[in-house]
Amino acid sequence: MKKALVIFGSTGNLMYKKLIPAIYHLIQQGHIGEDFMVYAVARRNQSFDDYIEEAKNQVKISIDWTHFKQYINYRVLNVDNIDDYRRLNDEIVNKSYNDVSIYLATPPTLFPLISKGISQSGFINKGEKHKRIVFEKPFGEDLESAQSINKELWKYFDETQIYRIDHYLGKEMIQNILVVRFANIIFEQSWDYRSIQAITILAKEEEGVLSRGGYYDKIGALKDMLQSHLLQMAALILMDKPKEMTSDLIKDEKVKIFQSMTFDQKDMLLGQYKGYTDSEKVDRNSSTETFVYAKAYVQNQRWHNVPIHFLTGKKLNEKRSEIIIHFKDNHDLNLLFPQSSKVENKLVIKVSPKEGVEFKFNVKEPGLTNNIHPAILDYCHNCKALENTPEAYERLFMELLNDQPTLFTRWDEIEKTWELVKSMKSNSQPIVYNSYEDLLNILEKKEVLIDDL
Amino acid sequence: MKKALVIFGSTGNLMYKKLIPAIYHLIQQGHIGEDFMVYAVARRNQSFDDYIEEAKNQVKISIDWTHFKQYINYRVLNVDNIDDYRRLNDEIVNKSYNDVSIYLATPPTLFPLISKGISQSGFINKGEKHKRIVFEKPFGEDLESAQSINKELWKYFDETQIYRIDHYLGKEMIQNILVVRFANIIFEQSWDYRSIQAITILAKEEEGVLSRGGYYDKIGALKDMLQSHLLQMAALILMDKPKEMTSDLIKDEKVKIFQSMTFDQKDMLLGQYKGYTDSEKVDRNSSTETFVYAKAYVQNQRWHNVPIHFLTGKKLNEKRSEIIIHFKDNHDLNLLFPQSSKVENKLVIKVSPKEGVEFKFNVKEPGLTNNIHPAILDYCHNCKALENTPEAYERLFMELLNDQPTLFTRWDEIEKTWELVKSMKSNSQPIVYNSYEDLLNILEKKEVLIDDL
Repeated sequence: MKKALVIFGSTGNLMYKKLIPAIYHLIQQGHIGEDFMVYAVARRNQSFDDYIEEAKNQVKISIDWTHFKQYINYRVLNVDNIDDYRRLNDEIVNKSYNDVSIYLATPPTLFPLISKGISQSGFINKGEKHKRIVFEKPFGEDLESAQSINKELWKYFDETQIYRIDHYLGKEMIQNILVVRFANIIFEQSWDYRSIQAITILAKEEEGVLSRGGYYDKIGALKDMLQSHLLQMAALILMDKPKEMTSDLIKDEKVKIFQSMTFDQKDMLLGQYKGYTDSEKVDRNSSTETFVYAKAYVQNQRWHNVPIHFLTGKKLNEKRSEIIIHFKDNHDLNLLFPQSSKVENKLVIKVSPKEGVEFKFNVKEPGLTNNIHPAILDYCHNCKALENTPEAYERLFMELLNDQPTLFTRWDEIEKTWELVKSMKSNSQPIVYNSYEDLLNILEKKEVLIDDL
Repeated sequence: MKKALVIFGSTGNLMYKKLIPAIYHLIQQGHIGEDFMVYAVARRNQSFDDYIEEAKNQVKISIDWTHFKQYINYRVLNVDNIDDYRRLNDEIVNKSYNDVSIYLATPPTLFPLISKGISQSGFINKGEKHKRIVFEKPFGEDLESAQSINKELWKYFDETQIYRIDHYLGKEMIQNILVVRFANIIFEQSWDYRSIQAITILAKEEEGVLSRGGYYDKIGALKDMLQSHLLQMAALILMDKPKEMTSDLIKDEKVKIFQSMTFDQKDMLLGQYKGYTDSEKVDRNSSTETFVYAKAYVQNQRWHNVPIHFLTGKKLNEKRSEIIIHFKDNHDLNLLFPQSSKVENKLVIKVSPKEGVEFKFNVKEPGLTNNIHPAILDYCHNCKALENTPEAYERLFMELLNDQPTLFTRWDEIEKTWELVKSMKSNSQPIVYNSYEDLLNILEKKEVLIDDL
């Protein structure tokens, strides 16, 4: 197959920061290249050389542009103009590209319009094999807008042709969740309410809103992070074992989790960091939350009474994204081991920036004592890789170009997670926080176990 | 309490190599010293200064003798002469020592005679509090001799006054077994036939029989190692959870395991290293085994069909003593993860020379692949101790002096393990091995999984 990757929004941040580096790495490492071409598409009327010059300025990694230029074209396209689509499609058809991926790195409001152009120009026909269309996150801004966008897309494409991005699914340790759970009987055997006390899913950021104020202020932490990344992580942790590791069977199980999940309204905490409203393009009276803590339960037998803690926010004390499985203490622990004052048995899946698995369990303290203390077993995933582990987008491009939809989100996943977020929407104003400590103090009063946070 | 520790056999190897260093460390670290005195007892007629000179030559560690000498006396005693016992007892009574431990670091054949002397001289009266007697390993040379010795002892002492040494029970990681098992729900939950494929209990030695030929040739690996250390390790691994961690409740559970254990005669392999019969004090036609592999099953629900592999021997490829819990593969592993060619999920409790816990489990291989490979989580116990972890004998002395019998063996444990060894005794001659490889080749043909060995 000759493969073309058409990217809309190719003068945007995502293109320079993530997509070009990912594509370049894949070419460098020989994963793609032969019979492969990127068509960078944007509205701006400029020459290929101008585009490359701009890219050189924006891309942060070191690139051998002379080599890389061979795999890239720049095409001007006005998303309102059906002739522009036709012209590009003709070119691609004439050059015998018979496997076409169209990637929309644009705001979600443009998804219906561009989809319509793609469809009407004959770029992708409904049900056509080896033609697919990729939508960047966010997929809508709430349940209704997502439904409305999706309704449009389904006019033009089959669900199997639609690839929705959640780049967390491309991360190494997220792909590792199902392996750790289902390729190790000791974890599989212990993966339920009998052994698990609580689960914590964290995505903490140290930075503020930076230059994303215009987008972020309309969205907030709940929709930007929890609806997508955090709920996706939760689903992989909580889902039942699928019969096989196929895309649809996995997603069926994930959707069941979203359907069974309920959020505990009264325990939710929204926050906004002090100074947020002074940020560029942010409403001076904004009540957008930059922090959210929420507690959920899954209404099934396996997760009976096990709280799932979610926490994400900006301007916190550190950048750290991880999943913590907190195992129960044995009910007779204190009877058996009166010296066990501070014990811990937990599994931590570290997603970012460090990638790895940490297993904390209890051992005898060395020496002439019977005290028990936790030992930490630490597996560093990105330390083991010959180079760094691949960026999420590298993985996602490989999956896309090989017609593998597992790491992309199906419509019902999107719909159910928006429904969950809708169910959580409270009218409460976010409290203003100076520091992460402020938030922890409040959470502690809510009797949240804050050790993991 | 003023505590006296009387050691018979104090001109022997064990005294110099193990007992003096252990006592010295305990004094140095302030664990004992105040109101404490060692009475080193032996037949040899020599002065205290001569004894100390001999000890200086024999003890391998660096000792501040001027300091240490204050805590030690040397007394000549002929084990046949009741007056010698009386004289020593009078001295100890006159000096107001009201907590007396008598330690027999002598061959087991002397146990009844010395016990009789101890009893008749009034050193220890049956049932008397704060008086105890300690017997070094081996406790007998077979079931009958052990029974006969014990019958004598029970004439003179209550079982609660009798401390039988198995120094493996003083080792850090052996004490850790019950903590790891019962203070971590994830292990407790997985500790049965549903999750465990096999258990391997190893004690490999690199050295040959050295200067112990005279003793060893009468005993062999089965009695020297398997009857005691290996079966003790197995019991701690296999036993059910006691209601509380008291000496008797733990031993009740251990004995149940010995009673339920059966050895698979046909899978046993005995070996004798080439050159063994040329060793000092060894019979030139000796058929004593220096290596044994044996497979057992425990006839209860928890361990249904789980093989317990025992392996111990001299002149093998390395010095290594450890316990390996081999978890099962999930039955659907290959269906879920077709790329899982080489997976492993096991827990290794490292007893010696390295002390620690290794947990091997399966993760995604880093990079653009779906392969699964084992990750190793390694907790080093003796690395965490400020200094080295205490020697087994240090721990055992502390337990002894504090009236704690948990780490010593009760008579029924001894009796049941001798019964087990008796049940295994085959008439087959040991095969002669040149190297460990020779043995592994034979075991492989017996379909023993040799990866762990």
